[in-house]
Amino acid sequence: MFTPAQYQILTAISRSGTMSRTDLAGVTGLSKASISMLTKELIGRGILGERELVFGQGRPSVLLGLEANAASFVGISLQADPTILLLTDLHGAPRARMELPRRRGHEQCLTELVEALPTLLSRAGQPVGPISGIGIALPGFVSRDRTTCLYSTALGWSNVDIVGYLATLCDIPAYIENDANALILGEQLFGIMRDCPDFSMIAVGDGIGCAHIVDGRLHRGHNGGAGEISHAPVVLDGGTIGALPCRCGKRGCLETVATLQAIRAAARQAGLPSDIAELAQMAQTGRPEALAILHRAASALGIAIAQLIQMFDPSHVVIMLDTALKGEVFGAMVQQTVEAHVMRRPDGQATLYLRDAQKDGFASGAASLAAQQFLFGLDR
Amino acid sequence: MFTPAQYQILTAISRSGTMSRTDLAGVTGLSKASISMLTKELIGRGILGERELVFGQGRPSVLLGLEANAASFVGISLQADPTILLLTDLHGAPRARMELPRRRGHEQCLTELVEALPTLLSRAGQPVGPISGIGIALPGFVSRDRTTCLYSTALGWSNVDIVGYLATLCDIPAYIENDANALILGEQLFGIMRDCPDFSMIAVGDGIGCAHIVDGRLHRGHNGGAGEISHAPVVLDGGTIGALPCRCGKRGCLETVATLQAIRAAARQAGLPSDIAELAQMAQTGRPEALAILHRAASALGIAIAQLIQMFDPSHVVIMLDTALKGEVFGAMVQQTVEAHVMRRPDGQATLYLRDAQKDGFASGAASLAAQQFLFGLDR
Repeated sequence: MFTPAQYQILTAISRSGTMSRTDLAGVTGLSKASISMLTKELIGRGILGERELVFGQGRPSVLLGLEANAASFVGISLQADPTILLLTDLHGAPRARMELPRRRGHEQCLTELVEALPTLLSRAGQPVGPISGIGIALPGFVSRDRTTCLYSTALGWSNVDIVGYLATLCDIPAYIENDANALILGEQLFGIMRDCPDFSMIAVGDGIGCAHIVDGRLHRGHNGGAGEISHAPVVLDGGTIGALPCRCGKRGCLETVATLQAIRAAARQAGLPSDIAELAQMAQTGRPEALAILHRAASALGIAIAQLIQMFDPSHVVIMLDTALKGEVFGAMVQQTVEAHVMRRPDGQATLYLRDAQKDGFASGAASLAAQQFLFGLDR
Repeated sequence: MFTPAQYQILTAISRSGTMSRTDLAGVTGLSKASISMLTKELIGRGILGERELVFGQGRPSVLLGLEANAASFVGISLQADPTILLLTDLHGAPRARMELPRRRGHEQCLTELVEALPTLLSRAGQPVGPISGIGIALPGFVSRDRTTCLYSTALGWSNVDIVGYLATLCDIPAYIENDANALILGEQLFGIMRDCPDFSMIAVGDGIGCAHIVDGRLHRGHNGGAGEISHAPVVLDGGTIGALPCRCGKRGCLETVATLQAIRAAARQAGLPSDIAELAQMAQTGRPEALAILHRAASALGIAIAQLIQMFDPSHVVIMLDTALKGEVFGAMVQQTVEAHVMRRPDGQATLYLRDAQKDGFASGAASLAAQQFLFGLDR
């Protein structure tokens, strides 16, 4: 726990990686004397460390950075089976990893996770800082106070007070979040988007996750449902694509055509290999049936992204594609569809970032839930 | 101009209409003694006035409210032809109104507006407060610093520094904003949504405007392009509706089927009366061709709103329908489409408010640009 002024310093440094005391004074509005005193305390506590010298006008200044081993965090992703546990340091770097089969009953699931913590810790080769929190990313709706999984089809959970239950099992504070929200918070805290106050992210895998950072903060939506692009209607009844029924009970959802599952199903139906990498390879070599299936998925995704850009105008849209979809065909199709459906604006355009999904992205995002609590004192 | 503490008081009172000194202390965190002194100053300056007594436990308390005549504001809507000029008071109530033909050249247009101000003032029957600002709502893109119209097809303006040009003509400070943004700010400041920190608004008329309040603030988007739902792709190529070319150069935009213009064009093509009210009346009596045209427009609009809700989860979506569309048929069709395409959520649903568009809504919203400057010291 830190004072408000110390949190200001930690926030500023975590945004830019390293900063000099002079720059800290400029950014925080605190006096140089205060900065000097506060940073001395934080160095003394092992939270900050001095990095390289910077030579400019006048005296060279020392850059300050976060000490990786000041704290560590457990990130747990329930997004897919197996569950992934990740131990990260204060730089967001993974220090240990393990997998567990995802259990259906929440009591067994959470108990096994807590019991696995000593094993996880033992796998860290080098010494790590004290665990200051556990973050959990889950596929489903999370309550406004972020203690409870309101509903998750994938987990089969309904009204499970995860934070309350974990508190009966261990003393480490826990934080939960919807999986896509955890992923974008991880990108913002430790990823390539840490300087970006307004961006959206779409992750395409067995489901389609979406989340938004607005004005530097996670936009959860009034009922915690922002980012449910997976069930946005993109395929109108009677359209060329055909509006398939979705597991949510509606028709024409993005999920019915653009997830890996949907692509596999379409491939099987067309008598093509249902392995995505193989299908992508066939498309790459110009096989029209394979191209058609990927084109259908990429078009629907591109349309949804164009709608998002038209409605909300983020500065960037980060599109995380499952590694099986990597290669140039699918990404180029998405990009072309977006460009064809976004209106030219006089003051600039949203930038698309196509990225391969990181294997442990959700677990890493989950760890960042606990890390942001450590660094900022409260959820941003 | 007020002190930061005075602005806190004005903000709190403007949000709830009237407040007691005790409640002000609770909301602002200032001491009762400070509140007493600050409100005394504001009463002395004629900004606040004492309203009715409230009886509860202990001594009855006096409610304080804004004095309508503390200031007045000129709101100008360039959204349609004719241009509308509105003089409003600090309660947002209109006190005088006039119309001018909308001129194409910006110099002539703005000069005529300034020259019309004495006439506008002379039309106020009762005395009004001093004019503290001019707000202008315009159909087009506004620069990030909100001085310049970057581009407006409707006005034929490109890179017009409106605020700068007005400063050469008169001494009253001017504020400009995109028309839909001005409309939502008016709803937030003086309308029915003043307590609502997260809502979206869609206005259907000759165009389709859309704007968002997120976390109590207008969400302009990174490039000032948030709310361009009009050019969001909702009609996919080859769909039943058919993707018509749009004036923006794309196909399948919401605007191609759901504006009054689009409805009129479809009616003409079907040999039906192109007067919207007449068409709505025919639909009301069950004429299938009229129903089909309205259904097409309402479906596209409903799909776009469902996408908005799925992606951003506002607490409310206010749908302002042109009065010609009023009556039950069109609104019910929109509502049904939204309900059919929004996924049920465990933690509540976005509420749809169907409203008749106010005749001077854009001008009133424009006046609120100046009013919020007066009340909060800066754009929220």
